[in-house]
Amino acid sequence: MGKKRIQSLITSLAKLKTDLYQKDFLLTWLQSDAELKAVLTVADILEQMYRANISTRVFDGGLAVSNFRDKSTRTRFSFASACSLLGLTAQDLDESKSQVAHGETVRETANMISFVTEAIGIRDDLFVGYGHEYMREVSESVELGYQAGVLPQRPAVINLQCDRDHPTQSMADLLHLVKTFGSLKKLRGKKLAMTWAYSPSYGKPLSVPQGIITLMTRFGMDVVLAHPEGYDLMPETLEVAARHAAESGGSFTQVHDLAEAFTGADIVYPKSWAPVSLMEKRTTLLKSGKGHEVEALEKEGLAQNAQHQDWECTEKLMSLTTDGAGLYLHCLPADITDVSCKAGEVAATVFDRYRDPTYHEAEHKLYVIAAMIMLNRFKKPARVLAGLLRKARPRRAG
Amino acid sequence: MGKKRIQSLITSLAKLKTDLYQKDFLLTWLQSDAELKAVLTVADILEQMYRANISTRVFDGGLAVSNFRDKSTRTRFSFASACSLLGLTAQDLDESKSQVAHGETVRETANMISFVTEAIGIRDDLFVGYGHEYMREVSESVELGYQAGVLPQRPAVINLQCDRDHPTQSMADLLHLVKTFGSLKKLRGKKLAMTWAYSPSYGKPLSVPQGIITLMTRFGMDVVLAHPEGYDLMPETLEVAARHAAESGGSFTQVHDLAEAFTGADIVYPKSWAPVSLMEKRTTLLKSGKGHEVEALEKEGLAQNAQHQDWECTEKLMSLTTDGAGLYLHCLPADITDVSCKAGEVAATVFDRYRDPTYHEAEHKLYVIAAMIMLNRFKKPARVLAGLLRKARPRRAG
Amino acid sequence: MGKKRIQSLITSLAKLKTDLYQKDFLLTWLQSDAELKAVLTVADILEQMYRANISTRVFDGGLAVSNFRDKSTRTRFSFASACSLLGLTAQDLDESKSQVAHGETVRETANMISFVTEAIGIRDDLFVGYGHEYMREVSESVELGYQAGVLPQRPAVINLQCDRDHPTQSMADLLHLVKTFGSLKKLRGKKLAMTWAYSPSYGKPLSVPQGIITLMTRFGMDVVLAHPEGYDLMPETLEVAARHAAESGGSFTQVHDLAEAFTGADIVYPKSWAPVSLMEKRTTLLKSGKGHEVEALEKEGLAQNAQHQDWECTEKLMSLTTDGAGLYLHCLPADITDVSCKAGEVAATVFDRYRDPTYHEAEHKLYVIAAMIMLNRFKKPARVLAGLLRKARPRRAG
Repeated sequence: MGKKRIQSLITSLAKLKTDLYQKDFLLTWLQSDAELKAVLTVADILEQMYRANISTRVFDGGLAVSNFRDKSTRTRFSFASACSLLGLTAQDLDESKSQVAHGETVRETANMISFVTEAIGIRDDLFVGYGHEYMREVSESVELGYQAGVLPQRPAVINLQCDRDHPTQSMADLLHLVKTFGSLKKLRGKKLAMTWAYSPSYGKPLSVPQGIITLMTRFGMDVVLAHPEGYDLMPETLEVAARHAAESGGSFTQVHDLAEAFTGADIVYPKSWAPVSLMEKRTTLLKSGKGHEVEALEKEGLAQNAQHQDWECTEKLMSLTTDGAGLYLHCLPADITDVSCKAGEVAATVFDRYRDPTYHEAEHKLYVIAAMIMLNRFKKPARVLAGLLRKARPRRAG
Repeated sequence: MGKKRIQSLITSLAKLKTDLYQKDFLLTWLQSDAELKAVLTVADILEQMYRANISTRVFDGGLAVSNFRDKSTRTRFSFASACSLLGLTAQDLDESKSQVAHGETVRETANMISFVTEAIGIRDDLFVGYGHEYMREVSESVELGYQAGVLPQRPAVINLQCDRDHPTQSMADLLHLVKTFGSLKKLRGKKLAMTWAYSPSYGKPLSVPQGIITLMTRFGMDVVLAHPEGYDLMPETLEVAARHAAESGGSFTQVHDLAEAFTGADIVYPKSWAPVSLMEKRTTLLKSGKGHEVEALEKEGLAQNAQHQDWECTEKLMSLTTDGAGLYLHCLPADITDVSCKAGEVAATVFDRYRDPTYHEAEHKLYVIAAMIMLNRFKKPARVLAGLLRKARPRRAG
Repeated sequence: MGKKRIQSLITSLAKLKTDLYQKDFLLTWLQSDAELKAVLTVADILEQMYRANISTRVFDGGLAVSNFRDKSTRTRFSFASACSLLGLTAQDLDESKSQVAHGETVRETANMISFVTEAIGIRDDLFVGYGHEYMREVSESVELGYQAGVLPQRPAVINLQCDRDHPTQSMADLLHLVKTFGSLKKLRGKKLAMTWAYSPSYGKPLSVPQGIITLMTRFGMDVVLAHPEGYDLMPETLEVAARHAAESGGSFTQVHDLAEAFTGADIVYPKSWAPVSLMEKRTTLLKSGKGHEVEALEKEGLAQNAQHQDWECTEKLMSLTTDGAGLYLHCLPADITDVSCKAGEVAATVFDRYRDPTYHEAEHKLYVIAAMIMLNRFKKPARVLAGLLRKARPRRAG
């Protein structure tokens, strides 16, 4: 039964026209719909195989490099899990022990770590205007190395969160929606509210809301972005969202009222972030060696946040959603009022009701990462997956 | 030959009535005799298989998470070794990079790191009254996640040392005794002296002596606990030891004289520890944010130790043991007089004579850890082991 | 085709008389020519197998331990890559979390980490007079443990750079020369200039130039060592180089003029290092607890360097080499003028032209490490390699 379903997913995968082989998937809005579907499908196949105890080890040796330029638990474990399932050894590039910097050196380091490397996962979300550029530089560096024959293979560069997008998160969220509502098609016409929420911490990255509004507008959904005045996202992502909505027959609107956003919503994603203007100021301070002024900026940001403590996902707000049963999403960890902080993004009873669904949402991420690696590294991924299914080598003995 | 012996161990394993599948083994005194025997037997089988060059890789992908809340070399390597032999990828949960804390968050993190995780090894021995509780919280968290279908499997939680017990150490010590004396039965009537010993360092955990007196009293041994006045263990463990001795037909006595403890002993385990009262004071200081007062407490502890420099395992004391040839045990590293310090737990000539045996004692630990993982993760471990033996896939080529 | 070439390499390997099984390869000058050829041949075989998608996983479980006593990116990744290809799990021995020190304790730790360990890679290059000694101590410790039956196998100790030699680097450099010029024989009569070069950083280790002059003089090359007055290497290595040149029919000369060294050179290796006298002073300061005086010494060293900014590998100098097309070598990272620093070891246009060759040079290192492990761990490496070729298990699916 499990196998039949997996077989049918492989068949749909084989029909998709994609161009992901040896190409990096850095921002969802640079990929075609078919490519997004391919990632979702491969992620689903790998998840089903795991649960059916079918080994997905497609590599018998070789490295996967992780490069975290920000603290991380969830993403670190997602990447390590994905690599382990594919048979790759994860090795951390700890920059405090290396000379990765600019220009020549990024190119050199990217090649030096890649002689037997199949994937490089990078998290670089702290500096607005730099994270995506760094990933592109690494991507171009390994491409050059591969073209020159220096690298026997071209490692996939996986965006584990940059300043603009968080594709492994938003694609995991999308897979969660597909599984919850039944299919991509059934998302058409659904209302999704991506809203700011109060948090007592500061400087949370923009990539999650940006990733959500740009991705979810592609499938005919009605996406509403809600935040207090001043909490703007990067303008580029608003344009992409508007364009996607127009193309898909959905809509993209912005409001500054939480209740309005929740009213009639099928899906809500209340989550804190810092205004792009503040993130830019911080980036400028840090890049110009004025790190000592960041503390003042942080205070400013927290004071600004404190004016919006009423932006909390309460039971009352949830009752405004469709049938009072809208789906709550969060990338975790959430700031839960009276649990992880005095006042936060979400009321404890709301979070409690959606805890297990958010855990499922999080689980998908590791399979999205594994899918991105496979699609980049194999010319005919459907054939490779069919081979795994045919052999059905058990992942655990017994 | 090796294979015949392994086969006979598997046969005995199959006869043991145990209930370890998907249950955590956190304190030896909560497990049945049969379960202890099962751990010893599986550890022995895995060790024999390793030496017979038979692969024990029962997993083809999947994680093992280590969470060290105290410095560690030996245990860290034991855990990594065990995971490597089973085919799991060890991934460290470095709390300086995560948000593991209290309440909700332990539950969340435990689930977030466990989507493809088969084992979580935890060392948390510094805070009296907290280490075991933390492990139980992690254990309950993954159980809830598994019951809710969030986790496809329930990872084994392995106690790599808590405030109360050090089961992988004490079970490795027991396996060492079984191998030295021939069988569990032959331990009956043997005298084991678990004694305090002087060390110039402070705050050594209580879990080793507590683990030894609670475990060794179960097999009809005469266990003597010896320490200077004031160096008490946690009362709970003394009660357990007394009860075990009564049930097994052995004995458990306490003395405050080192020579008395050594006299006629078949086995001696001289090792330093801190008084439970001091550990409790330290815990209170640290938990109430008075970390600065710990230094004063440390001086107090060292001064108290210094009054007992004569508690050293000397040749003269060893001559009091049975035939002057009692077996010396230590969990390592030992404080060796004139080698690793000016005055320590043991005389250099004594340690020198027992160095290789203590190394063998230490070796067993990795197989005990692997055994605990296997017994938790496989419903029919004897069948899985029999499968490994039948295939006899070489661990190294050639 | 690839397979035929690999087969012929295995055939030549089988003919070499070597004694590397369970012996450590710590300094190239302690090994026979046949042993050097065996390392080069196995490295080449493993590299060809990787490119032919043939799995080289000879271990199905087991550890490889890395012990870096200095910062490292390249070597760390080389070692991790080699281990991954052989099927070993790399585990870092982080001394900040352990008790590795002197005497007894090195012996104990070496054994404690080695129960299932096949290789221990050590980098210890900062203290002149100590790095090699530490490696020997580890080597002897595991030998004793193995002889006593404490260790089921004797791990290979791999020198990842000591104070005297950098054998994985120099052997990778040699493999690069063999591949560039066609064979070891074709190196005979070639002129190689190992020269000092200016760097704005200080305290670069001596092991690269020492490794080069001692190794390259063995094959009939004309090796010229050039450096400003005062930048002497360890005398022992000069003697070895002179002896090797006399034995091989090559030559070893020293000059203090960069143009003279480059004139007519087929190969140039311009690279900065610190004078041995300064390194000794630093070692003495650090070992005697006078770390605060090191800063003054560093300033002194940089000032000394600054007098030799003209020691740069320029286009003009390169034009003096054979046909103006001498091969540029570097162990990377190079200090590139106007790229990684204002004034450095090499002009940007020169480095640019040789970037890809230096990347290839670097790539060989991981295969040299893997070769050293295999030759130490297998009695009949040719048979093991032939087995891998026969099975030709794909390293990546598809």
